[in-house]
Amino acid sequence: MSIRIFVTGGTFDKEYNELNGELYFKDTHLCEMLRLGRSRLELEITTLMMMDSLDMNEQDRETIAKACLEVPEEKILITHGTDTMPETAALLARQIKNKTIVLTGAMVPYKFGSSDGLFNLGSALAFVQTLPPGVYVAMNGKIFEAENVRKNKSRGEFETIHQPTKQ
Amino acid sequence: MSIRIFVTGGTFDKEYNELNGELYFKDTHLCEMLRLGRSRLELEITTLMMMDSLDMNEQDRETIAKACLEVPEEKILITHGTDTMPETAALLARQIKNKTIVLTGAMVPYKFGSSDGLFNLGSALAFVQTLPPGVYVAMNGKIFEAENVRKNKSRGEFETIHQPTKQ
Amino acid sequence: MSIRIFVTGGTFDKEYNELNGELYFKDTHLCEMLRLGRSRLELEITTLMMMDSLDMNEQDRETIAKACLEVPEEKILITHGTDTMPETAALLARQIKNKTIVLTGAMVPYKFGSSDGLFNLGSALAFVQTLPPGVYVAMNGKIFEAENVRKNKSRGEFETIHQPTKQ
Amino acid sequence: MSIRIFVTGGTFDKEYNELNGELYFKDTHLCEMLRLGRSRLELEITTLMMMDSLDMNEQDRETIAKACLEVPEEKILITHGTDTMPETAALLARQIKNKTIVLTGAMVPYKFGSSDGLFNLGSALAFVQTLPPGVYVAMNGKIFEAENVRKNKSRGEFETIHQPTKQ
Repeated sequence: MSIRIFVTGGTFDKEYNELNGELYFKDTHLCEMLRLGRSRLELEITTLMMMDSLDMNEQDRETIAKACLEVPEEKILITHGTDTMPETAALLARQIKNKTIVLTGAMVPYKFGSSDGLFNLGSALAFVQTLPPGVYVAMNGKIFEAENVRKNKSRGEFETIHQPTKQ
Repeated sequence: MSIRIFVTGGTFDKEYNELNGELYFKDTHLCEMLRLGRSRLELEITTLMMMDSLDMNEQDRETIAKACLEVPEEKILITHGTDTMPETAALLARQIKNKTIVLTGAMVPYKFGSSDGLFNLGSALAFVQTLPPGVYVAMNGKIFEAENVRKNKSRGEFETIHQPTKQ
Repeated sequence: MSIRIFVTGGTFDKEYNELNGELYFKDTHLCEMLRLGRSRLELEITTLMMMDSLDMNEQDRETIAKACLEVPEEKILITHGTDTMPETAALLARQIKNKTIVLTGAMVPYKFGSSDGLFNLGSALAFVQTLPPGVYVAMNGKIFEAENVRKNKSRGEFETIHQPTKQ
Repeated sequence: MSIRIFVTGGTFDKEYNELNGELYFKDTHLCEMLRLGRSRLELEITTLMMMDSLDMNEQDRETIAKACLEVPEEKILITHGTDTMPETAALLARQIKNKTIVLTGAMVPYKFGSSDGLFNLGSALAFVQTLPPGVYVAMNGKIFEAENVRKNKSRGEFETIHQPTKQ
């Protein structure tokens, strides 16, 4: 069974507009990145939206959830802006129980030399193949459960909210 | 518990020598790649050797196996040339049963713009965190078991030797 | 006699701030670019300011003019934002007659893979070595005289204002 | 009048063959580099050969000289391997007196992140537009006359053979 990838935008896919000096969305770089990674996975790719995750509202998140529920694939990767990735993950976790869903993104646009995008894409594709059903965030080489992750905006990295309790 | 990374060389780490136009090994790019990936994993990194995997002999492979057995970590990532990666994986699989060991590498040197190295590193780090004990090869976004993988040298990709039998 | 380079900022030197997703100035990339170009020229490099050329005012331009007049070098390269490069060039042309001054910049930040910065730097350094005294803009592989150049903002390229008259 | 570019190969255009790990020639990257540089120059581009300059023989150099003589353009840029660039320049200088010919190349393949190719291309295009008739080598940001240049192979840079005499 193939893996479904939903593209929603995020820093990952931002381009530099040389006419006005602003960052914007054109097309996703996902296919170029998969070629670069010499991926031989069976993938179905759908662009749901191309937006900054700070601009996403509840309806956008419902669109993503609906898309996850409707497709036949049980393994789903979502590229997403980092700022509200945990919110989307939490909403998906409440609605979807029987699929493995991994969200990932990038701190720096793929087209910048210093992007983490390709690393994150590789890691997210591996996590989605191996993890049991659930909703996860794959960033910084780590995997986080949807209900226990936040973006530390001052450090620019993802972290767990609750420390694991020792028993 | 942290993950151990053993560097052994391979295309991954080849550099271009501008004085004589040849590819050679200097230092590993692994730390630079982990920074690029914004990895926040706890990692212990050891360079065992820096060599083309076509030049590896049985003793080199024994050195790798011995190193895997001696370190306390139960999760080990090995960067390795692609040409004999399956041979090393097979030897490790015969000797080591209780650790998760993932080998990865690159088809194109990291320093070339078109390298798959960063993607493979991200994927291998995710696989090593999630897979049960065993020896694996992570290439092309996929995971292969040590006893069932070969490099298809005419296509430049990894594939299983035996197709899974339907039951 | 060496060449003086004055850094004033511009797209050339913009960085991506991964904490807030905005473009900003940190340090100039000029030295890194010169190393990449294997430049063996004798250069004196001074950062006068680090700003978007849309934010430059008359006083900033006077600072640049004053710096050009004060240094002993007769060949001067200025890195500058593209939006008001012609205005600065025109002001310099009115004040300075006996030096060869070449302004250049980039349409896309150097740190983006698709930057024209390195090409422009190479071309500007060649023009400043070979042209007679005067003030020039080096962009798009071409050289423009200070009094006869504008940025075509809809096409994102530089062009002459007056066509040469046939005689 | 447009500028003619003759492509002859050299490190500039070497690619990494991921099937056998060797460097080889496929197509020239010149057009991609000119796009990157946002060049708006009128250029006529011809690939004469794609070879390592160490493999060039006298007949290859005669082919280049003949091509330079036959085209109508008076300004010619030649991309060339660095190892025998001075030899080709010297031969051209003996045969061609009324054209401005600039040879350039790269110490590191363009496809490697650390290439000097784009910088050299920008500088060579500027030199060919501004210099009087003669044959020149443009490397390291500098311009050398055909009869007074050698590659210092231990330092990996170009230098004059004779120091200018003070009068």
